[in-house]
Amino acid sequence: MNPELIDTLVSKKTTKIVFLIMDGLGGLPREPGGLTELETALTPNLDALAARSTCGLLDPVGYGITPGSGPAHFALFGYDPVETNVGRGLLSAAGVDFPMSPKDLYARVNVATIDKEGIVTDRRAGRINTETNRRICEKLKREIDLGDGVEFFIEPEKEHRALMVLRGDGLSDALTDSDPEMTGRKPLVPRALDARSKHSADLVASLLEQARHILADEDRGNMILLRGFACFRNLPSLHERFGLKSLAIAEYPMYRGISRLLGMDVHPLTGSLNGQVAALAEQYETYDFFFLHVKHTDSRGEDGDYDAKVAVIEEVDRLVPSILDVRPDVLVVTGDHSTPAVMSGHSWHPVPVLLASPLARPDRVERFGERDCIGGGFGRMPMMHLMGIALAHAGRLSKYGA
Amino acid sequence: MNPELIDTLVSKKTTKIVFLIMDGLGGLPREPGGLTELETALTPNLDALAARSTCGLLDPVGYGITPGSGPAHFALFGYDPVETNVGRGLLSAAGVDFPMSPKDLYARVNVATIDKEGIVTDRRAGRINTETNRRICEKLKREIDLGDGVEFFIEPEKEHRALMVLRGDGLSDALTDSDPEMTGRKPLVPRALDARSKHSADLVASLLEQARHILADEDRGNMILLRGFACFRNLPSLHERFGLKSLAIAEYPMYRGISRLLGMDVHPLTGSLNGQVAALAEQYETYDFFFLHVKHTDSRGEDGDYDAKVAVIEEVDRLVPSILDVRPDVLVVTGDHSTPAVMSGHSWHPVPVLLASPLARPDRVERFGERDCIGGGFGRMPMMHLMGIALAHAGRLSKYGA
Repeated sequence: MNPELIDTLVSKKTTKIVFLIMDGLGGLPREPGGLTELETALTPNLDALAARSTCGLLDPVGYGITPGSGPAHFALFGYDPVETNVGRGLLSAAGVDFPMSPKDLYARVNVATIDKEGIVTDRRAGRINTETNRRICEKLKREIDLGDGVEFFIEPEKEHRALMVLRGDGLSDALTDSDPEMTGRKPLVPRALDARSKHSADLVASLLEQARHILADEDRGNMILLRGFACFRNLPSLHERFGLKSLAIAEYPMYRGISRLLGMDVHPLTGSLNGQVAALAEQYETYDFFFLHVKHTDSRGEDGDYDAKVAVIEEVDRLVPSILDVRPDVLVVTGDHSTPAVMSGHSWHPVPVLLASPLARPDRVERFGERDCIGGGFGRMPMMHLMGIALAHAGRLSKYGA
Repeated sequence: MNPELIDTLVSKKTTKIVFLIMDGLGGLPREPGGLTELETALTPNLDALAARSTCGLLDPVGYGITPGSGPAHFALFGYDPVETNVGRGLLSAAGVDFPMSPKDLYARVNVATIDKEGIVTDRRAGRINTETNRRICEKLKREIDLGDGVEFFIEPEKEHRALMVLRGDGLSDALTDSDPEMTGRKPLVPRALDARSKHSADLVASLLEQARHILADEDRGNMILLRGFACFRNLPSLHERFGLKSLAIAEYPMYRGISRLLGMDVHPLTGSLNGQVAALAEQYETYDFFFLHVKHTDSRGEDGDYDAKVAVIEEVDRLVPSILDVRPDVLVVTGDHSTPAVMSGHSWHPVPVLLASPLARPDRVERFGERDCIGGGFGRMPMMHLMGIALAHAGRLSKYGA
């Protein structure tokens, strides 16, 4: 089933849907015969919720596929993650709230250090501070000249990171990265992957050549590395597709960016999980759909810190009663993908999910955990279908066919 | 998800994957309320493995579809079994290691007996011995003449079986069989299923007419029946798709043929299961992927011999410790399809699977059996996605998207 089938069935209602997303929620046992992070965590509130929910396991992209955060979140919001696999550059542009234009070509920038032979000695220029980064970006913005009809922007982010934008007619993102992804090598020359990308490849080559000269007198940060070329892409919003006025309550740029790309309003930073839950309560009357994003489950997983990930899950569990206080018609709790602490990174393992609603058909799951969810009423399903199920439980989908 | 998505993510590693395939593994109870062959078998080693594996059920082709060995094995190796459904003729050509050319049209041959009216009285010519078969094929090869530009080959196999090859320009395999699949009928005249197959249909008609005259003086084996027309097809190899240097340890022509079609090296015949496992150990350093094929689970199922199939499964179970001795990074145990002894043939029932690896997420399955695997962590999934999952557990797939 194509996930867009649900778009044709959407009927407007005043019901409200809350997605509580613990990034990287799924895990693995620390030792053979052990429990996963979620299974270890003391989660009385999530367990009570699971006992009255339909549970299951979600595959973000597909069997065996380890997703980046982009595809995983697109799947959560009901978008086919393969068709909607926008490049990193576009996610970055949305993340810094860059005023986008359909003529844009974006890329992620690392300010880096090269030696006299042009070999990369530090891909992050010793993690220069944001101030230095800003100064370097200003210099590039002032001096780089790509000729008539092509504008150049570079927006500093934190430390050594930046966003690069070319704006002009006929730009294409079928380009290989210049970032060699390791030290001891020269930056690569981006190649055009098809004929119509030749012009863009030439522009990028000229830009990189100019950047090397402009930054030659810098001690650290005398070069830029580009990756994740991506053109502007106009995705249909959650409002257009599902009639949902949507609010993202997320603290990290990537997730705020994805939310913006999908037409959600993005709540100002709150600085804490408590603040995020308070924002949900405050804004509850104004929106139909709430994306409450918890980053630290993933961060602690990426750190390889099993105990710390358990602690974050327990912290979220303590907030569940406050979330239930708003009495959402549908509450979904899941992750965007798995980040097992033993792997210190994302993984392909499916993610546990629960959906609580008066119309949720009960299963026999009594605890919220990976092993328990195997026996859940959703079984194992592609993540991109979750949104349709949530809409159905919210009474927001009409009957299909006569 | 398209199974080819994983091809784009392959990253080379030195990890090793072993597929232990018990052909026709899945079964059915012999009597109402009873156990399947696998459930009946005493399999302490497989059970211990299941307890620390992720388990599940695989659908070789699709719900309700009973696969032949060809599609089932293509699915096992990560190929869409519908798109890759090559004809039987091509599988036979690969099975006898015929030196193939892109200009070839293949068909399976049965040497058969017809009466004076041309009616088939024995589709296998009384299972003539291989020697007689060879003599008959020699005669046909010597005398059949299809005119300029078309070569004719016929390669005897065991007993009454042979492979036929036409080689020329513009041949097509959209032809119906000549084998009527029953006695008491005349051989059928192969029909062209589309316009561009007319030429091939004419050639085959001429060939069959000539064969009838050439073999007229034979007592048994005075005609040939053709089925499974198939042109040459160049499939991407396991090495091209997944970067796997692969070894097939299989004793039967069909499976050796499929392995060759997919670019695997094929180990010399060992003559026993013990020999096959010994070959795995000997070749372990040389390859990345091992396909260890056990035929007799299927053969005994086809015979309708429930107890004998149970015995084969128990024999395989006793070999599991020797397989584990090589310490594979990923060990998959499954079948290519079900062959319930009570059906004496292949069936559509999904096949139990286990995957053992340090990164396998545990489920609650404690025994390797059909009913147990229903509750496994893989749930029920299309067989063609198994290879991607194995590659993921072997650390051979990079992340999808940013």
